[in-house]
Amino acid sequence: MRIYLSKFAIIICLTLIFPPPTLCLKSAVNVWPKPRLVSWPKPLARFLSVNFTIDSPYHLHLAPAVTRYLALIRTEHYHPLITPSVNVSVSVPPLQTLSINITDLAVPLQHGVNETYSLSISEVGEKAYLIAETAWGAMRGLETFSQLVWGDASAIPVGLYIWDAPLFAHRGVMLDTSRNYYEVEDILRTIEVMCANKVNVFHWHITDSQSFPLMVPSEPELAAKGSYGPDMIYSPSDVAKIVQFGLEHGVRILPEIDSPGHTGSWAEAYPEIVACANMFWLPPGIAWADRLASEPGTGHLNPLNQKTYKVLENIICDVSNLFPETFYHGGVDEINPGCWKADPTIQSFLSNGGTLGQLLEKFINSTLPYIISVNRTVVYWEDVLLDDVVKVDPSFLPREHTILQTWNNGSNNTKKIVQAGYQTIVSSSEFYYLDCGHGDFLGNDSLYDPQTIGRDPKDGKSWCDPFKAWQTIYNYDITYGLSEDEAKLVLGGEVVLWSEQVDPTVLDGKLWPRTSAMAETLWSGNRDEGGRKRSGEATDRLNEWRYRMVSRGVKAEPIQPLWCIKNPGMCNASPFT
Amino acid sequence: MRIYLSKFAIIICLTLIFPPPTLCLKSAVNVWPKPRLVSWPKPLARFLSVNFTIDSPYHLHLAPAVTRYLALIRTEHYHPLITPSVNVSVSVPPLQTLSINITDLAVPLQHGVNETYSLSISEVGEKAYLIAETAWGAMRGLETFSQLVWGDASAIPVGLYIWDAPLFAHRGVMLDTSRNYYEVEDILRTIEVMCANKVNVFHWHITDSQSFPLMVPSEPELAAKGSYGPDMIYSPSDVAKIVQFGLEHGVRILPEIDSPGHTGSWAEAYPEIVACANMFWLPPGIAWADRLASEPGTGHLNPLNQKTYKVLENIICDVSNLFPETFYHGGVDEINPGCWKADPTIQSFLSNGGTLGQLLEKFINSTLPYIISVNRTVVYWEDVLLDDVVKVDPSFLPREHTILQTWNNGSNNTKKIVQAGYQTIVSSSEFYYLDCGHGDFLGNDSLYDPQTIGRDPKDGKSWCDPFKAWQTIYNYDITYGLSEDEAKLVLGGEVVLWSEQVDPTVLDGKLWPRTSAMAETLWSGNRDEGGRKRSGEATDRLNEWRYRMVSRGVKAEPIQPLWCIKNPGMCNASPFT
Repeated sequence: MRIYLSKFAIIICLTLIFPPPTLCLKSAVNVWPKPRLVSWPKPLARFLSVNFTIDSPYHLHLAPAVTRYLALIRTEHYHPLITPSVNVSVSVPPLQTLSINITDLAVPLQHGVNETYSLSISEVGEKAYLIAETAWGAMRGLETFSQLVWGDASAIPVGLYIWDAPLFAHRGVMLDTSRNYYEVEDILRTIEVMCANKVNVFHWHITDSQSFPLMVPSEPELAAKGSYGPDMIYSPSDVAKIVQFGLEHGVRILPEIDSPGHTGSWAEAYPEIVACANMFWLPPGIAWADRLASEPGTGHLNPLNQKTYKVLENIICDVSNLFPETFYHGGVDEINPGCWKADPTIQSFLSNGGTLGQLLEKFINSTLPYIISVNRTVVYWEDVLLDDVVKVDPSFLPREHTILQTWNNGSNNTKKIVQAGYQTIVSSSEFYYLDCGHGDFLGNDSLYDPQTIGRDPKDGKSWCDPFKAWQTIYNYDITYGLSEDEAKLVLGGEVVLWSEQVDPTVLDGKLWPRTSAMAETLWSGNRDEGGRKRSGEATDRLNEWRYRMVSRGVKAEPIQPLWCIKNPGMCNASPFT
Repeated sequence: MRIYLSKFAIIICLTLIFPPPTLCLKSAVNVWPKPRLVSWPKPLARFLSVNFTIDSPYHLHLAPAVTRYLALIRTEHYHPLITPSVNVSVSVPPLQTLSINITDLAVPLQHGVNETYSLSISEVGEKAYLIAETAWGAMRGLETFSQLVWGDASAIPVGLYIWDAPLFAHRGVMLDTSRNYYEVEDILRTIEVMCANKVNVFHWHITDSQSFPLMVPSEPELAAKGSYGPDMIYSPSDVAKIVQFGLEHGVRILPEIDSPGHTGSWAEAYPEIVACANMFWLPPGIAWADRLASEPGTGHLNPLNQKTYKVLENIICDVSNLFPETFYHGGVDEINPGCWKADPTIQSFLSNGGTLGQLLEKFINSTLPYIISVNRTVVYWEDVLLDDVVKVDPSFLPREHTILQTWNNGSNNTKKIVQAGYQTIVSSSEFYYLDCGHGDFLGNDSLYDPQTIGRDPKDGKSWCDPFKAWQTIYNYDITYGLSEDEAKLVLGGEVVLWSEQVDPTVLDGKLWPRTSAMAETLWSGNRDEGGRKRSGEATDRLNEWRYRMVSRGVKAEPIQPLWCIKNPGMCNASPFT
């Protein structure tokens, strides 16, 4: 990150050389995620003018953000749970303007874009200043500014200087819209809250074995037959709306078309390209390793059928037209040997000496070059390289075009991936899977029959128990165990929400505020200036932020009894030392 | 249950002697909870007249229910996920009227009230018949009737006869409104959904250590100082509204004023009667057994202070005036010796040879007679008799006036209670605690620090892990291990929702459809006619019922991907045998 040359550069340097009395952000300035550097020597505040305005250079996507934030700042009037212990000056004229200065207005929203900003609110004068390298950084600063404002007569801390930039470039939420469907409005609301948490990638796991809800213009039958119904399809204009909304919130929309596994729904349109479709997922008497799918909903694309690639090329082409995002997620998780083996042509290939790995290599070799040809970097789940049985030789995965998303085995697999020389996105199911700890969804399960306590320990557990509490997420260091060089290959992380037992009715509570926990860890870390975990201090601040999200219309779940924030420190496991 | 004398008695007897071709309720008639007896020999249906009406004798509380159900039946037009495979006759004139006949209109809503009803919808004729012993049974029948209706042009199965009555008289939901506050509207909505599930007791855990949200007219300071704020208090008119709403839905409102433990919030008004209030709950260096509270929020009433009883008498008197319900829940769970021992007067009592048990006996003996004197049956948590350390001799708990609610140790404690001769309400935390499996809420907890998988098994777990899936709840038999005579002492059960990590934002999804699982088990059981667990069949039916609840405005969470109900049986753990 380049330090920009401005009058604030001097301040930054000074603050780095002579650390100012950087107070903890007390209750008046509960910014989430916590900025990297905050200087607020005196607990002073002033009012915002009722005619407060934002002065910004014109930028196509920033302009609606400015309009949005101006309305929010003018109307929110948030009442913190703990009354701020600051002096709001009545002798100073109210703040009239937030003036935005942007170094380079032309930078597009893409991976690695500079999100640095600084915010300076002085004790006097008409203007506060937000300075950013890019329009996207300015959006981050606007959010911070909005969180600083509180009260019926809007007040804001003054004598305040913030310098801020993310530790990790990729901070995402993965949502599965195949197992259960979400309305466009649910996705837009999610993007809006992501923006408020400075989370910048919406990884859209659009399709899976259960349904194919994306209208692909050149392959319309896929959604027409494979979706849950005509009212549960994302049209090209829906996608355009979501992409546009993402741009106005600084959130990239990263599409995933999972294949060759997780494609049962494709068989509704093209049964000929899908192996083992519409079969019972776990036939009686077969071993777990031979199951036809990881869960109900069978079907894998057949790599030996040329039509598979024709359909996929059409999809990749259309998706790359629908989504400006330069990453394309191709899936390749959880290939079940039992499914491929159930197909006669594949059986024949295998009995002639072919291997499952070769089948996958053929699949990758027939699709990855096409993805690259449309100027996309591919993201695959780690399985493509690390699966025990069905994986490819690394030579099939060019490192300059391939990112691997890790989900198994905690930091061990992160290390394996970066040691193999690949960039990675961390979504460890041990820490970042938001659907865990909610039982199993199968019907007719005799595991639930026993009446005594201390029964089968699997009873009532999900495969990735326990529930990932916000503390679990907050405390996870995604580069744990890596060398400095290895850590550079970690682009960031994504919390993941699979939808077997989730749909719009409970979406907000599943995502928030747990995603906020990841948001702060990936933005500014989880440690204080002394290098100690700040999860104790973060508890009260997250509590406050959760209530503010609720007041903004998000059904974020509570993390504690209200009593806890009203009695700071009293709900800790042990007192602060 | 007395078989009422009517023309239907003959039919009942015939169906018991010569079982009719009792078909499974197919997709057209997804009633939840499943009625006890359904005769529907042919898959026929007819339309409801657009002028359909309900003809009912006048009853103060039934009248609004009739109005409500009539509006629902006329306007719901529910579309089942699976199109019913029935013939809707167009040649028969539409059904004009549901005629209600009630044997005894004077019976009040109280424990053990007769909820039996029968419903007869013939293939021809203008009227269908709902016959019930009481107005409360008629409300159950109205709900069943409403669930039978579906489609744009409302249709209903015909040639249908249902006889129905609950297996257990007490079917409840406990909600904790102290740790986090709920608006009156949230409580009313919950009661409405309870009614739709034939759940008939709202156990209102009103107060606890965190807040005292009930305005007690003779002790106004308790709420004025002990609530979370003036906008988070239930006034007498709020209570009256909730009680009235309960009556109109056949739901009893059972108040709990937990004491002598869980009373930290009382100290805001009366510090002199509360031991160990406002202390850190787990002082460094002390053993777990010596903790001051089971969780943050300390304070136990002091049994040696006479003012304790003056305040309690005022509360009991006012609560018995506010709530017509004849059960009064007195709490008495989780008394922490460490808290009482922290009080100087109690220390003195103990060092003079007094015991903790004697303290509790003094408390019970100074309050229970007063509760009985206002014509209430008392409910206590099991701890009063079964706690390892602080418990009373059974002679202090008259069996004719005392019910014990069990929550620990599964069916073992149920057995202990009934073997001691007490009636019981089952709320086993192993099966019926809806808040479990959601991590811990403490701040500053080093348990969350480790970065490797396979870390401390407590990390991220709640004390009552795992999450109680609907299957866990559905499959639990609350009289497991009891003799026939012992089982008669089991009044029923309650699912329990503690609110450390719950508030209105996520209430519906926590309660529903998991409470529906208990509702069916306690109403008609969890076994088919052959005595086998019907959880496989119940999955699809509960799925359908969950979607219907959502369409009625309840944010019930999904139990499966939508794919599962569209592909019946395919999401089972194993195929039906």
